[in-house]
Amino acid sequence: MRNPQLNRNGGLQHLLTIDGLPPEILTAILDTAAPFTEVAEREVKKLPLLRGKSVFNLFFESSTRTRTTFEIAAKRLSADVINLNISTSSTSKGETLLDTVDNLSAMQADMFVVRHASSGAPFLIAQHLAAMGLEHIHVINAGDGRHAHPTQGLLDMYTIRHYKQSFANLVVAIVGDVLHSRVARSQIHALIALGVPEVRVIGPKTLIPTDVDKLGVRVFHDMRAGLRDVDVVMMLRLQNERMQGALLPSPQEFFKYYGLTADKLECARPDAIVMHPGPMNRGVEIDSAVADGPHAVILPQVTFGIAVRMAVMSMLAGG
Amino acid sequence: MRNPQLNRNGGLQHLLTIDGLPPEILTAILDTAAPFTEVAEREVKKLPLLRGKSVFNLFFESSTRTRTTFEIAAKRLSADVINLNISTSSTSKGETLLDTVDNLSAMQADMFVVRHASSGAPFLIAQHLAAMGLEHIHVINAGDGRHAHPTQGLLDMYTIRHYKQSFANLVVAIVGDVLHSRVARSQIHALIALGVPEVRVIGPKTLIPTDVDKLGVRVFHDMRAGLRDVDVVMMLRLQNERMQGALLPSPQEFFKYYGLTADKLECARPDAIVMHPGPMNRGVEIDSAVADGPHAVILPQVTFGIAVRMAVMSMLAGG
Amino acid sequence: MRNPQLNRNGGLQHLLTIDGLPPEILTAILDTAAPFTEVAEREVKKLPLLRGKSVFNLFFESSTRTRTTFEIAAKRLSADVINLNISTSSTSKGETLLDTVDNLSAMQADMFVVRHASSGAPFLIAQHLAAMGLEHIHVINAGDGRHAHPTQGLLDMYTIRHYKQSFANLVVAIVGDVLHSRVARSQIHALIALGVPEVRVIGPKTLIPTDVDKLGVRVFHDMRAGLRDVDVVMMLRLQNERMQGALLPSPQEFFKYYGLTADKLECARPDAIVMHPGPMNRGVEIDSAVADGPHAVILPQVTFGIAVRMAVMSMLAGG
Repeated sequence: MRNPQLNRNGGLQHLLTIDGLPPEILTAILDTAAPFTEVAEREVKKLPLLRGKSVFNLFFESSTRTRTTFEIAAKRLSADVINLNISTSSTSKGETLLDTVDNLSAMQADMFVVRHASSGAPFLIAQHLAAMGLEHIHVINAGDGRHAHPTQGLLDMYTIRHYKQSFANLVVAIVGDVLHSRVARSQIHALIALGVPEVRVIGPKTLIPTDVDKLGVRVFHDMRAGLRDVDVVMMLRLQNERMQGALLPSPQEFFKYYGLTADKLECARPDAIVMHPGPMNRGVEIDSAVADGPHAVILPQVTFGIAVRMAVMSMLAGG
Repeated sequence: MRNPQLNRNGGLQHLLTIDGLPPEILTAILDTAAPFTEVAEREVKKLPLLRGKSVFNLFFESSTRTRTTFEIAAKRLSADVINLNISTSSTSKGETLLDTVDNLSAMQADMFVVRHASSGAPFLIAQHLAAMGLEHIHVINAGDGRHAHPTQGLLDMYTIRHYKQSFANLVVAIVGDVLHSRVARSQIHALIALGVPEVRVIGPKTLIPTDVDKLGVRVFHDMRAGLRDVDVVMMLRLQNERMQGALLPSPQEFFKYYGLTADKLECARPDAIVMHPGPMNRGVEIDSAVADGPHAVILPQVTFGIAVRMAVMSMLAGG
Repeated sequence: MRNPQLNRNGGLQHLLTIDGLPPEILTAILDTAAPFTEVAEREVKKLPLLRGKSVFNLFFESSTRTRTTFEIAAKRLSADVINLNISTSSTSKGETLLDTVDNLSAMQADMFVVRHASSGAPFLIAQHLAAMGLEHIHVINAGDGRHAHPTQGLLDMYTIRHYKQSFANLVVAIVGDVLHSRVARSQIHALIALGVPEVRVIGPKTLIPTDVDKLGVRVFHDMRAGLRDVDVVMMLRLQNERMQGALLPSPQEFFKYYGLTADKLECARPDAIVMHPGPMNRGVEIDSAVADGPHAVILPQVTFGIAVRMAVMSMLAGG
């Protein structure tokens, strides 16, 4: 069975998850993104690659921040962008989701950027498009449930490569609520696929999936031990809804043990970089002194994120 | 008194309702739409016909689906599109509605696409623009109360002509909640104006207006009898708010008597087409086997709908 | 210390408030706006001055009307416009506001149009951008708390100059709820800076700030006395939330004493113009006979408002 993300020629058909994407494709996306970072420096930040294409931001879960990154990427490629915020309350049945997709496909959509609270919704859409013979329509997963958020994973990889040149000799630590994070899964798959020799996850037992070591990562519950000599620290966001749960004593307690402070960061290599997918909970998972400090590359991540999304969009639909 | 929808030269000034539009105008819209269906097949789905024009989607009633069709049509014509969702709570007085219109007119609007819960609101706006001497601003009714939804009626006519070539010898049945449907009124007016010799309406007595026969249609309460030898079946959507009302026993009951099944559809001609304005209530007014079956032309309706809206917009404001 | 609104060469860096802007800058904005009023008359209302620029409408307080004027101005300058409606509930801390700004800046924003319920928020953003070395990003205040609404003040000045040619010999009266109006402050600063010899404010004691005379205006509590021989009447909107407060007996009472009627308007000069920032409360602060009468220039204000916003945007980012 063919990888649903690849077309007959082995090119990118959809971007649904980093899991299972060949490393050459990952590298091709990063290589394609590089010149797009320069477009943003120009006086006229606009390329005609998607001119006349219709990109639908299909957000079944509200996320102004993520929607904005895709909207700006699509507009800089000259696409026509239509934002659709569809509350899942009005589409409770999977059947209706596909009716919505059929309907927008019939409006000659070229691309769906899909955000959905249910893991697998973008896959379902991609599968349905294939069944309907609509190979010219492409799907980008902009976050589905706890499953994946591949453009976030890709922009993280772009950032690491930018600052560390190669993935070959790195030690990378992912810190925080790995259990509920769709970002963490995308990151782990990408790091391993691109050849990072040592990936660590750091967090309390209640927030680390029990079988995460099967993915090929080392688990640490002591943050200082886990940060020892790492080149890259990837912080995860602590979702507000977790903060009052049974899994976590309190935000203050979490910060004490797993919040990234300048003090703890000293365990890492002197040239370590600190990443965060945003939005940050300052004083919960990261101290402001670190977030705004010399190791942080959190804002460059955002900048590279636009270039990576432009790269994916142009590879999918850029003629 | 002049038809408020026509300008001094007999051309289209506004599209408010199909009722009273000369058949030549209806045919001109369908003819204009035809080449736009080809635009959508192109690599660059964009024409400069409305470049620099300002189209305001003035939605006093929320409808993501309808707004999307007009937004995509306007963008493919290169217009600047501004979406305004105005809750009627903040514009309870008709006076305020016209102040809003005056205000947007003063921003050099070229076109208002108006959706409003009150029948007649688009007429009121068109009348007001005439009184203010603003003949260069055009109004399209995107659905007003129970009154009209003319672009839906027009895309239905386009679909029928596409599949049946001519209106001259057809038997067409409209099925369901005719009483509350703005679509049904637009359809009946259009079918009769374009020369369909036999138009039928099918539904329970509680959902058929008592005087509908005065429009020149035949009324059936038995669905099989009504579908006998028809060429075109036009299903109506059953509004959710009707389903718990006194007019209807239950959705299951409705489906039993008036839901379109493969079995009932056998009463129609073998080459009958099945239409639905969407979104469908599968299992209520239509069975999935029919909705996804070979007679259904429901998705082509959507595609033609974009072309028809592009046609209307370009006839109104396309220089 | 340098004026935060001016760049090193004395040009416009941000538009935050009219207070403290040199008269030459005010005049330059009005002069720049003039040709833009003609753009709106053209067949293609579009200029390439902001092509490829990213303008973010950052609305922390909902205002469809104001957002629309900036959106249409930016689109007519060919900018890419991104609308962000951010409820302040999700950004309760000032820190988070600046994280949002950092994040959008990292997406290579060129301009923020900011609306915020807190006075000073646009200043805070401008200050932060300077501290971050992001001089290429410009801020326009689209209304902050009770503080300022400078583009409204500027369009008012444009309107006065358009109808009265010069500010040199005018008597101008501002009428209504001066206390809670951000528009009134912008107007007073602009009128004085541009050399209007006599500025009056008219209203009940409870709605006039106690120290307003220090700004150089004359205070009247009797409307007829205040309107005597004025050239320009600038009405203020009475906010709905004031109407049930302790400051005001009732809307009817307010109308009796301070509502602008044809009768009261006879105290002004025969060629007086009547302005209102909209939306109007007809029958509260202004009678319909006046609002729609020959002295009213309320709709031209809206038209000039687009031109003024285009002028400000092109001066800030039009490279």
